[in-house]
Amino acid sequence: MRALIANGHGGAEVLELRADHPDPVPEAHDLLIEVHACALNPVDTKIRMGALGEREAPFVLGFDVSGVVRALGSDVTDFDVGDEVYAALSLIRDGACADLVCVDARLAARKPRRIDHVHAAALPLVTLTAWEALFDRCRLGTDEVALIHAGAGGVGHVALQLAKQRGARVLTTAGRPETQALCRKFGADVVIDYRESDFVAAVMEETQGLGCAVVFDTVGGDVFDRSLDCVAVNGRMATIVFNESTSITPKLFAKSATLHFEFMGVPGIHGVGRDRHAEILRLAAEFADMETLRPHVGRVISLDEVAAAHADLEAGRSIGKTVVQLR
Amino acid sequence: MRALIANGHGGAEVLELRADHPDPVPEAHDLLIEVHACALNPVDTKIRMGALGEREAPFVLGFDVSGVVRALGSDVTDFDVGDEVYAALSLIRDGACADLVCVDARLAARKPRRIDHVHAAALPLVTLTAWEALFDRCRLGTDEVALIHAGAGGVGHVALQLAKQRGARVLTTAGRPETQALCRKFGADVVIDYRESDFVAAVMEETQGLGCAVVFDTVGGDVFDRSLDCVAVNGRMATIVFNESTSITPKLFAKSATLHFEFMGVPGIHGVGRDRHAEILRLAAEFADMETLRPHVGRVISLDEVAAAHADLEAGRSIGKTVVQLR
Repeated sequence: MRALIANGHGGAEVLELRADHPDPVPEAHDLLIEVHACALNPVDTKIRMGALGEREAPFVLGFDVSGVVRALGSDVTDFDVGDEVYAALSLIRDGACADLVCVDARLAARKPRRIDHVHAAALPLVTLTAWEALFDRCRLGTDEVALIHAGAGGVGHVALQLAKQRGARVLTTAGRPETQALCRKFGADVVIDYRESDFVAAVMEETQGLGCAVVFDTVGGDVFDRSLDCVAVNGRMATIVFNESTSITPKLFAKSATLHFEFMGVPGIHGVGRDRHAEILRLAAEFADMETLRPHVGRVISLDEVAAAHADLEAGRSIGKTVVQLR
Repeated sequence: MRALIANGHGGAEVLELRADHPDPVPEAHDLLIEVHACALNPVDTKIRMGALGEREAPFVLGFDVSGVVRALGSDVTDFDVGDEVYAALSLIRDGACADLVCVDARLAARKPRRIDHVHAAALPLVTLTAWEALFDRCRLGTDEVALIHAGAGGVGHVALQLAKQRGARVLTTAGRPETQALCRKFGADVVIDYRESDFVAAVMEETQGLGCAVVFDTVGGDVFDRSLDCVAVNGRMATIVFNESTSITPKLFAKSATLHFEFMGVPGIHGVGRDRHAEILRLAAEFADMETLRPHVGRVISLDEVAAAHADLEAGRSIGKTVVQLR
């Protein structure tokens, strides 16, 4: 099969398109999927760089997939050959930048019917991340105020839509006119231009000095530290960015607040909570079909453009999801 | 009235017994309580030292009370004069080391009927802390495994009983034969002698290397840091001890785990969630009457012994709660 393999850890130059990579063989719980589309995520570049541990080369990246079931492992009962499915793949197995990929059926769900494979592939990883962070962990409630950083970003734009659907008031941050417009399109109540103003001051002004019941950090670094100041008394913050901050306790203790680390890779890596991933994807498919969850695909590329897209992703140049269309 | 006042911040020598301290005057939402018993907690010594901010002298410590309502503020409707009540008092108002104290009625509940004022006074602060940490924040589930540190301590012995009542499997730590025996009496499934063995290794062995779904740190310092290693994938840890650890993210991120800071003073300080405190105390009173929650009173003292008891508390010499009996 065609596959974009990484021939080792390093920069985008380790990626290499091969026409004759061996087909994957499904294990007992697996679906063998014919990949129609696969989306790129920051985690692709991290795994490529070796930041999530040493991996034996060659390996395949691309952990969001939408496609058609071509074969079933012996223990699979919930799917049939020919089903259109979508999933976020295990981060420790081969990904979907290839004609075929295997996924544990317990992580997969039928794809939304009203959107195509390209748009369906843009959803799983960011939706699982946003859903787990906002709903399963922070338990965002109707009428609560949420600060969601980078509302035009991959995770951000899905989080923003989910939070609005839940009934929350949503504050978000964006630095460019086009990303600010996107945030408004996705329903943000307040869009803070973080280049023009101090977002902490803006959040405190918008919340009468109370801060936000829920804060979702999708940026990290200094944004993480300053976001701790935006958490209300009894508030909950979730982060998806690794950060060795020393401010966590000093800023959260007296507020009796909570910090959730959200890493959506856990079910695929540890085999814990796979069913919940499939359940979230089934619910998200309904939302997508009702158009209350709209993935923002910024660019559709082919397999031989993925290396260049990795560089764009690392430079923060891309807006919306980059999706690889395979057929 | 009699009152043990602090004439400034500092060591136990700032405490001074006065026979003629002015009676407190109830505000609109207050109950005026005739104090029958008041329990000491580590927070007393912290406030005495000024660690929770500068306070105008003279001030009164003692934030756990059980007593009888003697007068009602104009807005109080749920209580009558003569009611026997118990409460954890606001940490920013005067405490109960005195004949009379005022408490916001929304923080108070009727005292358990089957235990006396001395035992009732031992419950509120530690019960609110343990309840909020284990149930409201960590959402400890039946059949989950919890590590509760210092199971013979003030918060620990209540947390242990609550966790057992919830149906969890409970591991705890204790260093002396008499405290280990207490942990067993309160229902601990596994008591780890932290002086004889590495508690992290013991926890991992007891959990087949999985760690605990819930970890409750009541000790802080090195125990906090090492407890992060005991948290399972998707686990939740709560701490009640301020700690500028740099290990939080490195140890919790990849496990997609949660850290809750539990500070029970929030409702009394910020006026947020007072009703929940009263509700917890009502439920705890039922548990106490059913003897599924038994406060461990180690020592009953008089008002003029409080200064010495502060020193014992700070030196870690006391076992069980120290309660001041006033009448």
